[in-house]
Amino acid sequence: MNIGTYSYEEYVHLVKSFHGSPAPGLLIGGFIVDLALKNLPDGEFFDALCETPVCLPDAVQLLTPCTIGNGWMKILDFGKFAVTLYEKSGGEGVRVYLDAEKLKRWPEVMNWFLKLKTKKEQDSDLLIEQIKEAGHDLLGIQHVRVEPEKLRRRKMGQVSVCPSCGEAYPVKDGDRCRACLGESPYVRE
Amino acid sequence: MNIGTYSYEEYVHLVKSFHGSPAPGLLIGGFIVDLALKNLPDGEFFDALCETPVCLPDAVQLLTPCTIGNGWMKILDFGKFAVTLYEKSGGEGVRVYLDAEKLKRWPEVMNWFLKLKTKKEQDSDLLIEQIKEAGHDLLGIQHVRVEPEKLRRRKMGQVSVCPSCGEAYPVKDGDRCRACLGESPYVRE
Repeated sequence: MNIGTYSYEEYVHLVKSFHGSPAPGLLIGGFIVDLALKNLPDGEFFDALCETPVCLPDAVQLLTPCTIGNGWMKILDFGKFAVTLYEKSGGEGVRVYLDAEKLKRWPEVMNWFLKLKTKKEQDSDLLIEQIKEAGHDLLGIQHVRVEPEKLRRRKMGQVSVCPSCGEAYPVKDGDRCRACLGESPYVRE
Repeated sequence: MNIGTYSYEEYVHLVKSFHGSPAPGLLIGGFIVDLALKNLPDGEFFDALCETPVCLPDAVQLLTPCTIGNGWMKILDFGKFAVTLYEKSGGEGVRVYLDAEKLKRWPEVMNWFLKLKTKKEQDSDLLIEQIKEAGHDLLGIQHVRVEPEKLRRRKMGQVSVCPSCGEAYPVKDGDRCRACLGESPYVRE
């Protein structure tokens, strides 16, 4: 069983080095992205959409050219374990998701995914084993279409220097930068 | 001039393979993260905060253990070219930013950063050359403190199966998943 252009073992190695640990979500995520890549609609350039910020975006970043920094990967905070790869201009895409129905055959994956057991109660070796054995069998696939314009990152537009902090910021944010307008994440001391 | 544990050339190679192109923002981003890493306050575990989603998050992901998927990197959409690395529990951190004042010595970087020239008018070889030559000289550094709790990713909480689509979703989102509650990014056909 390969994941993208990697063997399963190579992918696990990559995951450890990039993500820090071979998280179950990232192992399943590898199969999700792999299945999507194998079912791309026609087209040359694809963007990615993750329906959760947890784990899955790292599988996309490891296995496709789409990253958070280059803007080709978009993240929705829906808490759904699904990835869509869609053609950049027309929006035709393939969506791959973890199919709750299919979990019944893989009880330890179900326990983990639906949080039926606490982390302590889970048998993590069995979980990893079932994920590897199940591979694509855990997944569902749908043909979808998105409106690429709606998902595109807004252009930064004109840049100016903030009169409060002296740093560059996008003029569209107002007469000063968002941090100086009161949204600074830093504590004044 | 090294960037993290890489030579400049190794870093450029990594950037091309991960991000797709040696974008100026990611080259400067490399120096930003490098300078932050060299000025970490005391502590063992650090999270990262990017003040823009553009380019910079990929420098963080390449040079630190923090990624979007593992939740150790947080992104603010402030359009500011700054990265903070902060100690996970206390919030003491170092913030490195592109200092608009210092741009005057590097005119092609200034033209690019403040958008004084269009992409077509820019001399991209000169831009890359000035970025490499300038290195840390473009940057400013501040000691800051954040409230880690405020930046932490919300826990997913209890999971249930959405009665509309049959997929798992976080119960905190309501009686069905956000997609079925009307936020679906997909076009009905």
